[in-house]
Amino acid sequence: MSMSNHHSAERAPHLGTLPAGALGTIADVDGVSVGHCTLAEGALQTGVTVIRPHRGDPFVDKVPAAASVINGFGKSIGLVQLDELGTLETPIALTNTFGVGTVAQAQIRAAIRANPRIGREWPTLNPLVFECNDGYLNDIQALALTEQHFNEAFDAASADVASGALGAGRGMSCFDLKGGIGTASRVFSAAGRDYTVGALVLANFGRLPMLTIDGTPLGRMLAERAAVVEASNAASAAANATPDQPEQGSIIMIVATDAPLDARQLKRLSLRAAAGLARTGSVYGHGSGDIALAFSTAYTVPHGADFVALPPLVADHCMDPLFRACADSVEQAIVDALWSAESVTGRDGHRRLSLRDSVPDLAHLLRNSAR
Amino acid sequence: MSMSNHHSAERAPHLGTLPAGALGTIADVDGVSVGHCTLAEGALQTGVTVIRPHRGDPFVDKVPAAASVINGFGKSIGLVQLDELGTLETPIALTNTFGVGTVAQAQIRAAIRANPRIGREWPTLNPLVFECNDGYLNDIQALALTEQHFNEAFDAASADVASGALGAGRGMSCFDLKGGIGTASRVFSAAGRDYTVGALVLANFGRLPMLTIDGTPLGRMLAERAAVVEASNAASAAANATPDQPEQGSIIMIVATDAPLDARQLKRLSLRAAAGLARTGSVYGHGSGDIALAFSTAYTVPHGADFVALPPLVADHCMDPLFRACADSVEQAIVDALWSAESVTGRDGHRRLSLRDSVPDLAHLLRNSAR
Amino acid sequence: MSMSNHHSAERAPHLGTLPAGALGTIADVDGVSVGHCTLAEGALQTGVTVIRPHRGDPFVDKVPAAASVINGFGKSIGLVQLDELGTLETPIALTNTFGVGTVAQAQIRAAIRANPRIGREWPTLNPLVFECNDGYLNDIQALALTEQHFNEAFDAASADVASGALGAGRGMSCFDLKGGIGTASRVFSAAGRDYTVGALVLANFGRLPMLTIDGTPLGRMLAERAAVVEASNAASAAANATPDQPEQGSIIMIVATDAPLDARQLKRLSLRAAAGLARTGSVYGHGSGDIALAFSTAYTVPHGADFVALPPLVADHCMDPLFRACADSVEQAIVDALWSAESVTGRDGHRRLSLRDSVPDLAHLLRNSAR
Amino acid sequence: MSMSNHHSAERAPHLGTLPAGALGTIADVDGVSVGHCTLAEGALQTGVTVIRPHRGDPFVDKVPAAASVINGFGKSIGLVQLDELGTLETPIALTNTFGVGTVAQAQIRAAIRANPRIGREWPTLNPLVFECNDGYLNDIQALALTEQHFNEAFDAASADVASGALGAGRGMSCFDLKGGIGTASRVFSAAGRDYTVGALVLANFGRLPMLTIDGTPLGRMLAERAAVVEASNAASAAANATPDQPEQGSIIMIVATDAPLDARQLKRLSLRAAAGLARTGSVYGHGSGDIALAFSTAYTVPHGADFVALPPLVADHCMDPLFRACADSVEQAIVDALWSAESVTGRDGHRRLSLRDSVPDLAHLLRNSAR
Repeated sequence: MSMSNHHSAERAPHLGTLPAGALGTIADVDGVSVGHCTLAEGALQTGVTVIRPHRGDPFVDKVPAAASVINGFGKSIGLVQLDELGTLETPIALTNTFGVGTVAQAQIRAAIRANPRIGREWPTLNPLVFECNDGYLNDIQALALTEQHFNEAFDAASADVASGALGAGRGMSCFDLKGGIGTASRVFSAAGRDYTVGALVLANFGRLPMLTIDGTPLGRMLAERAAVVEASNAASAAANATPDQPEQGSIIMIVATDAPLDARQLKRLSLRAAAGLARTGSVYGHGSGDIALAFSTAYTVPHGADFVALPPLVADHCMDPLFRACADSVEQAIVDALWSAESVTGRDGHRRLSLRDSVPDLAHLLRNSAR
Repeated sequence: MSMSNHHSAERAPHLGTLPAGALGTIADVDGVSVGHCTLAEGALQTGVTVIRPHRGDPFVDKVPAAASVINGFGKSIGLVQLDELGTLETPIALTNTFGVGTVAQAQIRAAIRANPRIGREWPTLNPLVFECNDGYLNDIQALALTEQHFNEAFDAASADVASGALGAGRGMSCFDLKGGIGTASRVFSAAGRDYTVGALVLANFGRLPMLTIDGTPLGRMLAERAAVVEASNAASAAANATPDQPEQGSIIMIVATDAPLDARQLKRLSLRAAAGLARTGSVYGHGSGDIALAFSTAYTVPHGADFVALPPLVADHCMDPLFRACADSVEQAIVDALWSAESVTGRDGHRRLSLRDSVPDLAHLLRNSAR
Repeated sequence: MSMSNHHSAERAPHLGTLPAGALGTIADVDGVSVGHCTLAEGALQTGVTVIRPHRGDPFVDKVPAAASVINGFGKSIGLVQLDELGTLETPIALTNTFGVGTVAQAQIRAAIRANPRIGREWPTLNPLVFECNDGYLNDIQALALTEQHFNEAFDAASADVASGALGAGRGMSCFDLKGGIGTASRVFSAAGRDYTVGALVLANFGRLPMLTIDGTPLGRMLAERAAVVEASNAASAAANATPDQPEQGSIIMIVATDAPLDARQLKRLSLRAAAGLARTGSVYGHGSGDIALAFSTAYTVPHGADFVALPPLVADHCMDPLFRACADSVEQAIVDALWSAESVTGRDGHRRLSLRDSVPDLAHLLRNSAR
Repeated sequence: MSMSNHHSAERAPHLGTLPAGALGTIADVDGVSVGHCTLAEGALQTGVTVIRPHRGDPFVDKVPAAASVINGFGKSIGLVQLDELGTLETPIALTNTFGVGTVAQAQIRAAIRANPRIGREWPTLNPLVFECNDGYLNDIQALALTEQHFNEAFDAASADVASGALGAGRGMSCFDLKGGIGTASRVFSAAGRDYTVGALVLANFGRLPMLTIDGTPLGRMLAERAAVVEASNAASAAANATPDQPEQGSIIMIVATDAPLDARQLKRLSLRAAAGLARTGSVYGHGSGDIALAFSTAYTVPHGADFVALPPLVADHCMDPLFRACADSVEQAIVDALWSAESVTGRDGHRRLSLRDSVPDLAHLLRNSAR
């Protein structure tokens, strides 16, 4: 399968006024790496994406983290303990809804291999797995993912982060277009120091009429166009829409930062993903599991230590730049997912056009409404 | 004091595709009424606004309700019991931060007058009071509000809802401009029936560069203009900004609907206010107490009844139109607050220009970016 | 393996003043059934327990439910959506910590078999699986459970509910004694009508010195006795204790009622499990995933219906008898787990004595402190 | 009024195995002080209690804190911001339900006096006021408390902590007996270091039949005795009971510790108050606002600092001794409230007997069931 889609020649517009990091991905937060494993064979259009929060073993060196469940129509695993203890202790895995159990088992097996005392003298492991439903393109009933797919995604993790229709994003839909993996970053100053926020999203939400890019109500414009031109053009974006079906999507938003924050503050940060998401047109639809997780790489919590030493934390009243960077990164990452994904045909001939295949004059439309 | 500001000749743009109700206010939800009491004398620029959820006594006929705390930098009272029991039992009062205690006492006294058994054979009362900090324009340290101001606002309640720089909104600021009370409504169909959502906001949040109206980044445009033209023009919007001070604002968003929902569903609904808020540029800043409350007028919970009979509830999977209506109403209500407010001068010569005084070519700017 | 342990001749003391139902199990709530599948071979001492909330298909007729996470050191799956929507849509499965993923996959496969539209035209499924760590007796690293074990437990479900060292409880420990499955019920009157509350627990928590039965500090008495008699007696309860290891247990508490309650009220009800748990000596230890779920059988929420009709709900101010019945049922169910379980030897020669093997004069000790 | 009740000759039994601190009060946590202001004139039996978390100004040096709402039938103020920011910034005030607003205003005025920049260049203040309903003994409708009463309680704060029917506890009832203020402490070792937990409760909950002391079901024993002896004895404890009225009580549980914990950990700690509360017979009744707050004196969060330096925090897996100490302290403090309170007659001849007036053979009853 060609992965050429993820290094697109024409870049999406830069949103907001904060600059991006050097890579423009979540890997701008030092130590974060991402790997994908993609299934793309006929009716099977799915995969696994793994985000490693740092270069070490997160069970041994746990990572401060917190999540916000913006809309809880979702089947993720691991959030109960994360909420209680404020740390994550496995890589973050993304996959399809019916792959959660299998990927959780893979996480457990991998952790036991690395730490044979888990479940013996040590406590058990809290595998962290998020999901979206890729059932429109992917034969999700096939339960095609195996533990090996997780392992491959883990092994592939690097700081060269690809986005588009790959990994867990292979079969995802977004605004009735092709969705998938998107990523972005912002650099900024808070409390007098320079920090980075990076985001990676698994975008699988929204109906076309809601789509908004950089304030431009693109979905509404396309709907009006379609109404005029007739729905005769099979390649039109509006043909993607299946208005008789309710939204069954979701979005997972992973936010990383190198700013020193504790779990309470990371929960505050994670909620600002909801602002970035709203800017793209979402109202956190009923059927959409909209979940954001934020973690900090500024320190770790060593397993078994009796005391936890923290660096000085950014004070809450200095967090506004972090909040902006989070909202902007998430918004940008969603646009990146739409921008980077190629068109994909999956089960039963279902097809999702990419945004750019679907709207040939996309740049023109956005430019004309640009300020 | 002239209240002429609240029936503005030139209307704000209509946001989104759902139509407004007949009045375009929260009173489009039948039975809801609103009253204001305004203090506007020199350094005292503050007040009380009361929302009555129905025509009766909410202690006797309690109202299903729920709230979402989007950012909890706030001093409201009444949310603990609301969250536990899923009902409100007093009118909803809005006021300034240091008026909460006084207005709560006024709620208690008014309820005892109406129901002398409260605190005797009956339980006590849960007064519901929300607040924002109007300390930029108002001498909030004067603690000028009395219980009588609450009573006057209550007595003034009607379905003719005024918005602008009055009631609790008198001293509020929004995006470094004059904020205050805003209101809006949307009508729509869900589960095959017609319903209404109405919103009333107390808008006191945001710094100018974030201001976005209908997708247009107005704040950024004004900032760029100011940078070119120089800050020599004292009447410019940018002169409103005080960038050296952190945001100390807040927004209270009250959402009413006639759709039959239970408290769990109303909590879901209330959270969608966050989407409408984000569209105006907010990232739920640290210092901003951003709280949304939603209530339903479709039924009441009679005090003392052993069983509670509910009408058939709109199923969760039919709630998406409600979510859109909530987000659109809140966004529109915020714009209404900016649009309706007159310029106000308060304590120590502090002055907030209205949006329209501040941007004479506002319609032109919005039109040029309109789609 | 002999299951004779679960119909014990000598019954545990009846706790509190509310009477039990006819069966004295969770199945006193009409329609509720329970099935176990037990692995008991050498180092493998584990299993699956399934609770069916009603006789039908819970995906088609969803069950109002809510959960309280009392201490979130746990790896259960399904709580995010349960919290959002207030319904459960699969049977409730209990298993060991590393079996969650496998049992979740089994739930998914079973639901697709029953409803082939799941993950196609219909949304996906939210499998509900709870867990405790049985790693002291069971070789949890073996990941021995398969999807077939879930199926067998499901097929075995009946209203004849067995308790003790079987199903998911096979390998569990409780107060350094043999724990496992316990169940109990209470009947009472609320709002003038008769109702039942039933509980089933997977008890795997606590260190011996904390053990309290019916107000008697049995653990402390045994500890004092052990200090006197010396730890030379291998059969002594104190020999069970391994004080050098922190508690790694958990307890799952499932509460059923036929009283008509909505999800918000069921959340209130579920929290009262914490009171019953505390009476046995627990302080909700750090390493103990203490989770309670409550569901009502008084009505269901049909999949796909646009409106949800509810029976009149018991008013909140009439819930105190429900709260007492919940606390008493959970306390009694924990004692039942201790009382019913046989002694078990598992991996590496690890052995947990049953309460009655461990304390031959148990009845005497309890009687002497009885009131 | 005689305050002699609070230094009782005969002490309540010591509960549990952890030792108390030197004072046996919340003031064993160094720096914590408590003051009372009591109204005891005819129908007015009420007051204010103030807990100062440290010797300084908590607005300038904010105190890490968190709360658990165990049952939210309560009207406290200040919890929204506490939950968001993890700090308290005023003394903790306790009072009656209808005094919350007045005491909040007093807190605001006191803080402005100390820090005139509050509400000007600085943000506003989050007053923290908890309440119970003393309406059985006190004419709560009289709204008799003034801001001056708060000031007097604040000025009276010392490390010599009195308990009983005084301060906010003056008019409170508990298990149909005289309740009020109780306090206790425990010392213990965690992570190899010695720490203290102290508790102060405002006890106003429970019906007599539920009363349990040190595992002895005293309430049930008294109910049985009353059934035999006839209700002819006006001085009997059972005569206190008014079974036709639902519980309208509440309990506020304030927990202090010198162990270094962050807000997330303090939330965990505060929830363990529910275990101590349950041991006394409570099932967190519907009408009882059961709220616990925990704070740490190990460090402060300076107002306005850009970074917050924390000492090394006790690791979560070392928190079990803290959890036990919290549960034991709260249980002991409730018993102390019952033990220390004198009998009080209030409005309309309503009278609450003290536990010891009510049960002359109390020591005998407890001793006979003692282990």
